[in-house]
Amino acid sequence: MNYEPQTGDVVEIRTEKALYKGTIMPRHEFSRDDILILKLENGYNMGISLKNILSVSLIEKGDMGGVKHGGKRPEGKGKKVTIFSTGGTIASYVDYKTGAVHPAVSSEDLLFSVPELANIADMEAKVLFSVLSEDIGPEHWKKMALESGKALNSGSEGVIIAHGTDTMGYSSAALSFALRNLNGPVVFVGSQRSSDRPSSDATMNLLSAARVAISDLGEVAVVMHANTSDDYCHIHRGTRVRKMHTSRRDAFKSINSEPIGRADSEGAELRDYRKRSGGEVEILPNFEEKVALLYSYPGLDAETIEFSLSRSKGAVIAGTGLGHIKPALIDAMKNAILDGKPVVMTSQCLYGTVDMNVYSTGRELIKAGVINGGDMLPETAYVKLSWALANIDGGDIAEFMKTNVAGEIGERRFL
Amino acid sequence: MNYEPQTGDVVEIRTEKALYKGTIMPRHEFSRDDILILKLENGYNMGISLKNILSVSLIEKGDMGGVKHGGKRPEGKGKKVTIFSTGGTIASYVDYKTGAVHPAVSSEDLLFSVPELANIADMEAKVLFSVLSEDIGPEHWKKMALESGKALNSGSEGVIIAHGTDTMGYSSAALSFALRNLNGPVVFVGSQRSSDRPSSDATMNLLSAARVAISDLGEVAVVMHANTSDDYCHIHRGTRVRKMHTSRRDAFKSINSEPIGRADSEGAELRDYRKRSGGEVEILPNFEEKVALLYSYPGLDAETIEFSLSRSKGAVIAGTGLGHIKPALIDAMKNAILDGKPVVMTSQCLYGTVDMNVYSTGRELIKAGVINGGDMLPETAYVKLSWALANIDGGDIAEFMKTNVAGEIGERRFL
Repeated sequence: MNYEPQTGDVVEIRTEKALYKGTIMPRHEFSRDDILILKLENGYNMGISLKNILSVSLIEKGDMGGVKHGGKRPEGKGKKVTIFSTGGTIASYVDYKTGAVHPAVSSEDLLFSVPELANIADMEAKVLFSVLSEDIGPEHWKKMALESGKALNSGSEGVIIAHGTDTMGYSSAALSFALRNLNGPVVFVGSQRSSDRPSSDATMNLLSAARVAISDLGEVAVVMHANTSDDYCHIHRGTRVRKMHTSRRDAFKSINSEPIGRADSEGAELRDYRKRSGGEVEILPNFEEKVALLYSYPGLDAETIEFSLSRSKGAVIAGTGLGHIKPALIDAMKNAILDGKPVVMTSQCLYGTVDMNVYSTGRELIKAGVINGGDMLPETAYVKLSWALANIDGGDIAEFMKTNVAGEIGERRFL
Repeated sequence: MNYEPQTGDVVEIRTEKALYKGTIMPRHEFSRDDILILKLENGYNMGISLKNILSVSLIEKGDMGGVKHGGKRPEGKGKKVTIFSTGGTIASYVDYKTGAVHPAVSSEDLLFSVPELANIADMEAKVLFSVLSEDIGPEHWKKMALESGKALNSGSEGVIIAHGTDTMGYSSAALSFALRNLNGPVVFVGSQRSSDRPSSDATMNLLSAARVAISDLGEVAVVMHANTSDDYCHIHRGTRVRKMHTSRRDAFKSINSEPIGRADSEGAELRDYRKRSGGEVEILPNFEEKVALLYSYPGLDAETIEFSLSRSKGAVIAGTGLGHIKPALIDAMKNAILDGKPVVMTSQCLYGTVDMNVYSTGRELIKAGVINGGDMLPETAYVKLSWALANIDGGDIAEFMKTNVAGEIGERRFL
């Protein structure tokens, strides 16, 4: 064939069995060389084996050739927004051999898949790493914090972090503690359906995130679908958000707090939020890795608590109800506390606040020195403790855990 | 004083400082001998030290004298309902020395506090045990199952179990697996506010539970406030219910399923439910104690999984998203599975269903032999596995976990 197929071109491909019309999708590092990926008009991507292709005819030349890895789009409005790719569905591709979704490795995929981003700002894309979010932890939080702070301190209006949804709430909490005095927004965004599916939420989420990124927000936020329609997104505070559904596009919910606003491709509306600071972002990117998050359940025994605490510098308990655990387990926690390891109580109910003054078990926990996590999410308390152990003097940690730093805990003081 | 104060009497008590009018409350095993407990007209209970009492005048003789521990009320409608007390707020009392709430020990407190119960059925009360619910586990499940089955097989129309709210969902799931072919309802009920407080939900919850107990339901259910008004209760299926708020009266929610009905003091309305069987209840009350419930989080390491699995006969993972965990932890799970220990995947999102076919991590988990927990709650899967390990042949457990037994899992087959 004379015509050399290029990413972005609309083409018609003839195989022995059928005729396909669609747009040629970019290649990934892991793409098989012998397969061409086509986005069909029904929105689905499909992989076509090169050896089955009889002919390819150009229908319309693509205009996406100018997108470069780490590069800048020619259009835009003079505002620079940095978009970091970390992996996850929003930057993932389907392996046409197995049908499974793998993390993609290039930020240009994001820009390519949503060209309208260029109408909102000058997008500068960079791949930070490329892992599925179940594998993201303290070392990744550090890198995201450092790079986001650096971008904001060197001219970016805002930062977008494309992130897998599984642990996005942990990461958004982490950056909320690691980045202080934010002079611009750090916006986490993901998608629940990969962009090769017609029902993908990637486009609206990304455009909404870009609108938030150029708003006057000075906080870490998560921007995801507000409902199952493609209407608008909620803007969630980074410390108050949790993935509450395995697959729905509106899986993310603010817990014990209202969303701080809404956004769509046209703009963002904020309420009860912290505005951009005038100064430099302060970057405190270190986290202690050895922190345990223990879920309380009827069969939990003292030996398991002892084992976990012996390997950790501190622990967060997701207790039952108002913050309870089997009384027989309190001694194991007390001993760790006497060894200088802070233990924080939260509730597996998720909604509501810990109150250890109501029942006798709670009073015993207070006596043992367990710290009241108030209305913090267990995951947020875990991340906050991990940050505290790397940044705060041991004697001040209990006080710090009860003090509101980034909207993560109700202003009411928790005893 | 000539008049001898008796439980149920409305009296006026004069102390040096004030005059109190109220109803004399029953004594508890743990009540201090030197304190008299009065339910004031504003709904609050208060303890008055005997040594401060100058005089007690009888205003109205109480008619609650006929309630005996384990006894039967004279009124009723000829239907017998057995009410078991296990502890918890609904059967708790305030220690007026410390202000903390302790478990009460007598079922007559329940009957006394809600005399209208007698208009619904002949209530027969029995104390099974008296512990706060954070301390309830497999041995208590066994006792509740045995006693409930026995009551239903010897003439009770229905069984009510007054239970602490913290772990009520675990216990209702347990009895759902332990009691088969139910010829009447087993209704768990609790309260989020102790009955000495005017905002207590105990009365409406108990009356609604009694209505469900004489309905034609043949399932284990949880009956609790549907909203924050005192309108009506939801009837939740025992395997689908979770405490989703630390303190609200409508804390209990059906997850991945609608409530199976609603009830108030006048009646109960059911939908999509299993009716009473004609025969005898089959009682399979054994549970394996050594089962782990592991919550996945960024800092979870292979050693902790290995330790937990080495002490357990099986484990349930509350993974992230569609059912994921850090790939580095899969080997630890695989080794346990090769040792014949089943590992079941559920999601910490709570809502939605596990699907391990979408992402590469999920496929690795399937390859390792991890069982798909579908849309089961992590807590329900934990209880089901605990039941399975005590009742099902090892080789059949994977199949059993994926099969719907008591409405705990969607009918769609999970691979």
